[in-house]
This record gives sequence, C-alpha cells and structure tokens, in this order.
Amino acid sequence: MTPKAAQLQTRFIQLRENKYFETFVILVIVISALMIGAKTYPIPQSAVQALRILDVGITLFFLAEIIIRMIAEQNLKRFFSKGWNIFDFLIVTASLIPVDDSEAALLGRLLRIFRVLRLISIIPELRVLMNAFVTAIPRMGYVSLLMFIIFYIYAAIGSMFFSEINRELWGNITIAMLTLFRIATFEDWTDVMYETMTVHPLSWSYYLTFIFIVAFVFLNMMIGIVLETLQREHEQFSRDSGEGEAGEVHRIDTRTAEMEQRLARMERMLERLSERRQ
Amino acid sequence: MTPKAAQLQTRFIQLRENKYFETFVILVIVISALMIGAKTYPIPQSAVQALRILDVGITLFFLAEIIIRMIAEQNLKRFFSKGWNIFDFLIVTASLIPVDDSEAALLGRLLRIFRVLRLISIIPELRVLMNAFVTAIPRMGYVSLLMFIIFYIYAAIGSMFFSEINRELWGNITIAMLTLFRIATFEDWTDVMYETMTVHPLSWSYYLTFIFIVAFVFLNMMIGIVLETLQREHEQFSRDSGEGEAGEVHRIDTRTAEMEQRLARMERMLERLSERRQ
Amino acid sequence: MTPKAAQLQTRFIQLRENKYFETFVILVIVISALMIGAKTYPIPQSAVQALRILDVGITLFFLAEIIIRMIAEQNLKRFFSKGWNIFDFLIVTASLIPVDDSEAALLGRLLRIFRVLRLISIIPELRVLMNAFVTAIPRMGYVSLLMFIIFYIYAAIGSMFFSEINRELWGNITIAMLTLFRIATFEDWTDVMYETMTVHPLSWSYYLTFIFIVAFVFLNMMIGIVLETLQREHEQFSRDSGEGEAGEVHRIDTRTAEMEQRLARMERMLERLSERRQ
Amino acid sequence: MTPKAAQLQTRFIQLRENKYFETFVILVIVISALMIGAKTYPIPQSAVQALRILDVGITLFFLAEIIIRMIAEQNLKRFFSKGWNIFDFLIVTASLIPVDDSEAALLGRLLRIFRVLRLISIIPELRVLMNAFVTAIPRMGYVSLLMFIIFYIYAAIGSMFFSEINRELWGNITIAMLTLFRIATFEDWTDVMYETMTVHPLSWSYYLTFIFIVAFVFLNMMIGIVLETLQREHEQFSRDSGEGEAGEVHRIDTRTAEMEQRLARMERMLERLSERRQ
Repeated sequence: MTPKAAQLQTRFIQLRENKYFETFVILVIVISALMIGAKTYPIPQSAVQALRILDVGITLFFLAEIIIRMIAEQNLKRFFSKGWNIFDFLIVTASLIPVDDSEAALLGRLLRIFRVLRLISIIPELRVLMNAFVTAIPRMGYVSLLMFIIFYIYAAIGSMFFSEINRELWGNITIAMLTLFRIATFEDWTDVMYETMTVHPLSWSYYLTFIFIVAFVFLNMMIGIVLETLQREHEQFSRDSGEGEAGEVHRIDTRTAEMEQRLARMERMLERLSERRQ
Repeated sequence: MTPKAAQLQTRFIQLRENKYFETFVILVIVISALMIGAKTYPIPQSAVQALRILDVGITLFFLAEIIIRMIAEQNLKRFFSKGWNIFDFLIVTASLIPVDDSEAALLGRLLRIFRVLRLISIIPELRVLMNAFVTAIPRMGYVSLLMFIIFYIYAAIGSMFFSEINRELWGNITIAMLTLFRIATFEDWTDVMYETMTVHPLSWSYYLTFIFIVAFVFLNMMIGIVLETLQREHEQFSRDSGEGEAGEVHRIDTRTAEMEQRLARMERMLERLSERRQ
Repeated sequence: MTPKAAQLQTRFIQLRENKYFETFVILVIVISALMIGAKTYPIPQSAVQALRILDVGITLFFLAEIIIRMIAEQNLKRFFSKGWNIFDFLIVTASLIPVDDSEAALLGRLLRIFRVLRLISIIPELRVLMNAFVTAIPRMGYVSLLMFIIFYIYAAIGSMFFSEINRELWGNITIAMLTLFRIATFEDWTDVMYETMTVHPLSWSYYLTFIFIVAFVFLNMMIGIVLETLQREHEQFSRDSGEGEAGEVHRIDTRTAEMEQRLARMERMLERLSERRQ
Repeated sequence: MTPKAAQLQTRFIQLRENKYFETFVILVIVISALMIGAKTYPIPQSAVQALRILDVGITLFFLAEIIIRMIAEQNLKRFFSKGWNIFDFLIVTASLIPVDDSEAALLGRLLRIFRVLRLISIIPELRVLMNAFVTAIPRMGYVSLLMFIIFYIYAAIGSMFFSEINRELWGNITIAMLTLFRIATFEDWTDVMYETMTVHPLSWSYYLTFIFIVAFVFLNMMIGIVLETLQREHEQFSRDSGEGEAGEVHRIDTRTAEMEQRLARMERMLERLSERRQ
C-alpha cells in the first residue's frame, strides 16, 4: 500500500467515526423516508422532478457512504463478517437497480422503502432491540411450529366438517387456516361459530378448545421470550459489573475457597506446634 | 430367546436409534399431513386413487415402525410405561380401523388427521413444550374451576333477567355461558349490552364487573403458569449444572459449614496450647 | 355445660372434620347449582314441584350445616372472626328469606344463585386463589383510581367536543365513560372514531393517546399484581422451608457471624501466646 | 425579613403540612371534577349561575393554595425545582385565563378539566405510580421509535399497493398508518384484508407478518417495563432495609472480607510462632 493510500484510509476511518457524519447519515435516511411518504400524496409535476433528483442524490450518497465504510474496514472479508454490514450492503445495492420501465418501477419503489430500515442499523439502541429479536428466534421457532401443527389439525377438521356450510371460510385447508387465524384474533369469530352451529349444534366446543389451546401456546411463547431476555440481561450484567447480588455471591465463593485453604494451612501449623509441645 | 432372535432385536434397537430412520419417520408424517391437506382441494380421480394407495402405505409403515420400537424395547410393560409410547400406539392403531362404509368414513378421516400429532412425539423440542403444558394442568385446573363458577353465576343471573329480551343469547344457562364467553373475548359485546340496557338501564354494571373479574382470574392463571415454569426451569438448571448463583450459594453453604468445624478444632488446640503455657 | 351437651359438641366437631361430610356438602352445593341451571330451561309442572321441595331441603340442610359449625366452634365470637364463616353465614341466612309473593321472588332466586359461591369457601385450593385476589386489592385500588381519573378527563373532553355529533355515545359524562370503556376493549372503536373525524379531523389523536395511556396503566396494574404475588409466595416459601436459596443465604449469614466471633477469640489467644513467647 | 413576615411564613408551613388542609384540597378538587361532569347534563339556569360562582371560588382557592405553598417553600427557585410544583402551577395559572368571549370558552373549559389531574399530584400513592410511568419513558421511547419505523414501512407498502382499491383506508401514508393501527387492535381487520385480497390474493401475508411483528415489539416493550420496574423496586428495597436476601449477601460479602484479613494476620502470627520454636 502506498503512503498516499494509507493516508486516505486513515481519513476514511476518521470520517466513519465522526459524530457529525453519523448524524448527517441519519438525516439523509429521514429525508429519504419522508420522500417515500410524500409520494403517496398527489404532488405537482415540478415536485415529482425535484423528488427524482433528490432520489438520485440519496442513492449516490448511500453508495459513497458504504464504500467509505468498506475502505475504512481495510478488509472486505472483515466488512462482510458483520451481519449489519451485509444488511446495509443489500439495501444500498438493491436500490441501485434502474427502475425506468414501468414493470420494475413497483419493485424499485418497494426497495427504496426498505432504506428506512437503515435507521435501525445506524442507531445503536435500535440495534440492541433488533439483536434481542434475533436471539429470541430459535425459541420462537419451535413454538411457532407447535402453533402451526395445532392450526393445521384444526383447519383439517374444520374444512372436513364445515366446507359444505361456507366454502369461502372453510373451502380448503389454506382458507380454513386463515379463518382460524381470524378466530384467534377474536375478529367476528362468533359470526363464524353461529353459522356452523346451525348445522352442527355442538361445534362451539371446536371453537372453544381452539381458543384455549392457542391462548396457552401463545402465553408459553411470551414466557419463553421473557425468560430468555431476563437470562441474557442478567448474564451481561454480571459479566460487565461485579456489583449485583450475583457478582457478590461469586466473590464470596472464591474468597471462602481461599479462606478454606488458608485455614487448612493454619491447622497443620497448629498441629505441628501441639505435637512438638507434647 | 434363540441367538437369531437376539440378533434381530439388536438390529431393531440400532434401527430405532438411527438418525436417518428418525428423519425418514418425520418425512412420512409430513407427507401424511400434506395428504390430508390435499384432500380438502378438488382433485382428479386418478390422484384420489394414488392418495388411497399412499394412505395404505403410510398406515403400514407406521404399524411397522411402532412394532420395531416395541421389539426394541424388549418388554411390552416397559414400552407402555412411557406416556408418549401410549400416545403413538393409540394414534397408529386408531388409523387401522377400516373405513370402507360411508358412515365410518368421516371418523376414519378424523383419526388420520391426528397422525400429525405424532410430529410432537418425535421432535424432542416439541415434546419439551408439551411436557410444560402437561405440568401446568393441575394449577390451570383449579383456576378453570373458579372461572367456571364465575361464568355459571353470571349466566344464571343473565338468563334470569335477560331471557325475555333475547332468547337466542340468554334463553337458558348453556346459551348464556356461551354469550358470556363471547363477551369475555370482547366480540361485539356492546351490541349485547346496549340491547339489555334498553330494558334494564343499569345492566352495564353486570357487564363491567364480569369483564373485570374474568380479566383478573385470567391474569392470575397466566401468572401461575409463569411462576410454575420459572420454578421448574430454575430447579432443573441447579440440578444439571452447579454454576449459577443458586449453585454457588449452595457451595458456599457446605464450605462454610466445614470451615466452622475446622475452626472449632483449631480453637480447641489453641486453648490447650494456652493452658499448657500458663 | 352439662356432660351431655359436651358430648354432643364433641360429636359435632367430629362431624365437621369428617371428610365424607365435606364431600356431601360439596355434593349438595353442586345439586343446588344444577337446580338453578335447570330452572332456566322449560320444565314440566311436576318437575317444578319436585324442584321446590328439593330447594326447601337444601335450604334446611345448609342451615343445619352452619349451625353444626357454629356449635363445633364453641364460641360465636370465634366463629365470626373468620371472614369465610361470615361469608357462608350471609349466604345461608339470605336464602332463608321467604319468597312467596311475586315481587320478592326475583330477589329470592338471585340469592339462591350466590349459594354456588359456597363452593369457593369449601374447596381449600379455591380459597387460596380467592385470598390472593383479596391481597391484591389495595394495589389494584390506587391503579383503578388512576384509571378512573384518566377515564373521567377523557370523558369530559369527549362529551364537550363530540356530544353534538352523537348524543347516544357522548351525550353526558356517564355515557362517554361507557363509550371509552368500549374503546378500551377495542370493540368497534374505529366506527366511533370515523364518526367524530368527519367533524374534527384531528380527533384520531384523542383516541390514540387514550388507548396508549390506558394500555400502560393496565400493564402497570398487571405488573403490580405479579410482583405482589411473587413476593408473597417467596416469603411463604422461606418461612415454611429453610431449603431454598434464600434459606441457605440466611444460614450462611448467621454462621459467618458466629465464625467471626470465634476468629476474634482465637486471634486474642494467638496474640497472648506471641506476647508471652517474646 | 421582619419578625412578622417570618411568623407568617411559619404559619404557612404549618398550614401546608396540616392533614386537614390536604384533605380539604382533595375535596375541592373532587368538587371541581364533579362540576365539570355536571355541566355535561342539561341543567336549569339557576344551577348554571351557582356553578359559575362555585367555579370562581375554586379558581381563587387554588390560587391561594399555590401561593401558600410558594411562600412556605421560602424560595421560588426551590419551589420550581420540583416537577410536581411546576405541574400544579401550570394547571392553576392556566385556569386563570378569562373565558368570557365564546371563542375562548372552549379552551377555558378544557383547561378546567385538567384540574382533575391535581388529584395525582396531591395523593402520594398516585404520585408513585406516575413516577414509575415517567421512569419507563426512555425505554419506551426507543421501542416506540422501532414501532413507528415498522408502521411507516408497512404504511408505505400498503399505500403503494392498495391505494387504488380503497382510497379511504390506504389513500396516503398518514391514513394508511391509522388503518394499520386499527389492524393492530384487531378491529374489523379481516374486512380490510378480504377487500385487498380480491385484487392481490397473496396480501394476507402482508397482514399476518405485520400482526406478528407488532405483537413481538409490543411484548418486548412490556417486558422492558416489567424488568425496569422490578430492578427499581429491588434497588429501593435493598437501600431502605438491609434485610432481604440481597441485603444478607452484601453483609456476608463485607464480613468475609474482614475475616480474610483477620485470618491473614493470624497466619502470620502462627508462622512467627513456628519459626521461633524451630
């Protein structure tokens, strides 16, 4: 690497870690978000033109920003080893796709919306919240699977018994699962129930057991996440500071272990003293 | 037992514990589940024929699988001592019932749906979730009884005062309980209330107290399950590892008890030393 | 007290504590509950007659049962010092009121319904649940007051701005509070909002802030009860057994205090030993 | 300060701390609240006149009360350093604004409603509840921001795809966000979904992912507040009393540290004793 390139890299690192630069990036993201919102209102032709130019500007700025961060990281492999960098890279490159023809225009606009997500990767507190979300995924996964099985079984039973009553709600297993999701949110679920009760008077037991089971599984999921979060925060706290109750107990544990060894040494000395004296 | 039979049994045990065999069983269950879903769509006659053959195949496979596990367990009593084995056995034998005549066809299809539940008994993580559910049942039982009493009293009052206003909602105590369950889920409950308020203007207090009480009992139930789960997980953690705070405290407890005994011994030695010196 | 009376009292105490007698009381309560339910169905005249006789029988049985418990307690003051006894006494005496004339018949039937509540005072597990409810009342009281103030302020604002739009929902402060309770349960709240938004386009902020504040207060109430329950159960656990983490810590605390005193004594002895040697 | 002024001030402090005076202030606030409620009912002209006089009286009383507290505090700076005093001062001065002309009448009545909030600043238990609310704001802030970003992105997508289907629900990004809030409360959300599904059959995935994400973020917020409250209450408990488990652990920590030093001293003495003996 030539000295000049090294100097340039140092400057890039300085720029990346600059507080004002960070604030400026946040500002650009907010403008880009407001632009998306503005487009949903009827706006005059001149404004459309201005927005298009602004859009190009923002796209280029984001491209420049991510290149700066890539160079500042010195190593592309290291850059892509961080999940958030991959996240930013995908959002930025996706919005580079030209959206001239009307077909891809919708896709292009959709990709621009996801730029707002960059706010999450820039603001540290939001990143912490998102990490908590990602950590909870494994546990949520199995509970979701259990929930899916319950929905599937109930949907199969529902479409078997009720498909003749109302094809729009119970016609096939997919529609039945959507209807069950609606019942799980209590949205006009009694209308659905009263309809099937005219043919199968005991079908209320189908709805009641479903609501009870789904509520329990959902509660379990909630508790799982609460426990997970509690444990994680607790461990981090003990690791960082040694001041909480857990930290004190740990300190007492090591201290009493040392005291025990010292006492063993002292007892041996006392025994030797006693022996000699005899 | 002849050597040949013993050899066969060893093979069955190997097969039962084989990872690929387990994955294959899961696959068969998933196919059986998809088949149930497929039947809810309009399908051509040839596909119906294919599904019927597949169904027979799956039924036979499940029968073979459970016989393998029975033999591998070596002892029928031991096999049936595990709740999950009884669960699997019931599901498999139930689907053996011939469903030729149209009368029992519905029952046969219903029993085939419950095969999907075997996913829970095969995947360990789902089994853990289900065990948590079963453990919470005793506590949930008494809260459910309390809730039932509240529903019963309110239903009795409701059907006494409101049965003349709307027979379809308050006609007898069973219908009134169903109406109250609907009110507990907030489903169009104001329509029910406004109707009775035209005759009994103060009946809003009936609905409001009911909603408050039911919400409290439900919360208590939720808390009970949370506490129960917390306690169970905590105990298991202490038992398995001795590393958490509870484990450290326990270690300090036994260690200080030993230290106290050693100190008592040392004090006695010191006292004897002092006495001799005098 | 004559010996005969004393003997009778001993028998009453034996009867009160008899397991079969308790089961029989529960059975009578359940029959009395089923009777209330049966009355809500259309029943033939002969059954009405039978129910009337059964009702008299149950009333007399309850009267006898409470008199037995009063005598067994030996002291009326002691009997009435327990909340559950007062509760039972009120329910039993209330159903003694004759309900011949049609006017009071409704009241009489209402009082008979409350007999079902005796199930709670008889089954110990339900009594524990009810005690938990009573313990949570003080904390719930202040949160309810805070909630009432919020409802009152919003109802005052609502009836000031919206009473001209819909008198049935916002006519006066009482009706407005009922409407707000409906909004808090999310029951068709958007219909209420869209109606007022036609006159006051910014009124959505009124509804959104209300929903946010009420949700927070409700959450706080829930947390309060959770904390209260946790603390109560924890204390009871430490008191009963000395085996949990809290019990171990307490044991370590007293033990180390004793060790410190012993160490101080030992150090003094060592110092004296050293001094003499010099 | 002249002796007379000092004497007057002492009296004011006595008055401020008088229990009866506090009760009287609460009473006046409750009357002022009832007055606001009474105005929403149709009342005769004479009562209107009486209410107007009562209103002037209450306004003057509140003014006097706050002046007493200001003088009693001795220092205006100290008075305004407490948040609750600023809160009271704003409410009292705001209701001093004359509301003669019909234009400002609405504003005047609105400001009078906020007087009810003074109940919170007077009753200590409600103040504790409000402080808990204020403490939870920072954590709630970031979660709300995350929630806002999610709403914004979904609203942008929604108004892009569905604005042609129903302009009243998806016309622009603001209306779309309101519609999404409605969906988050499960209020007739299936009607919204079924409408868009006629054009975009896969749009159910839009609604389902939104409901799942919002439910998770809301849960996280709830857990955050629970944790925060738990931690706060716990710390306060340890600080106030030294009796809980945390207090005992802290005591053991300091005690064992002292014991260690004493043991080190004792070991050195023993070593010296042994050396001399050799």
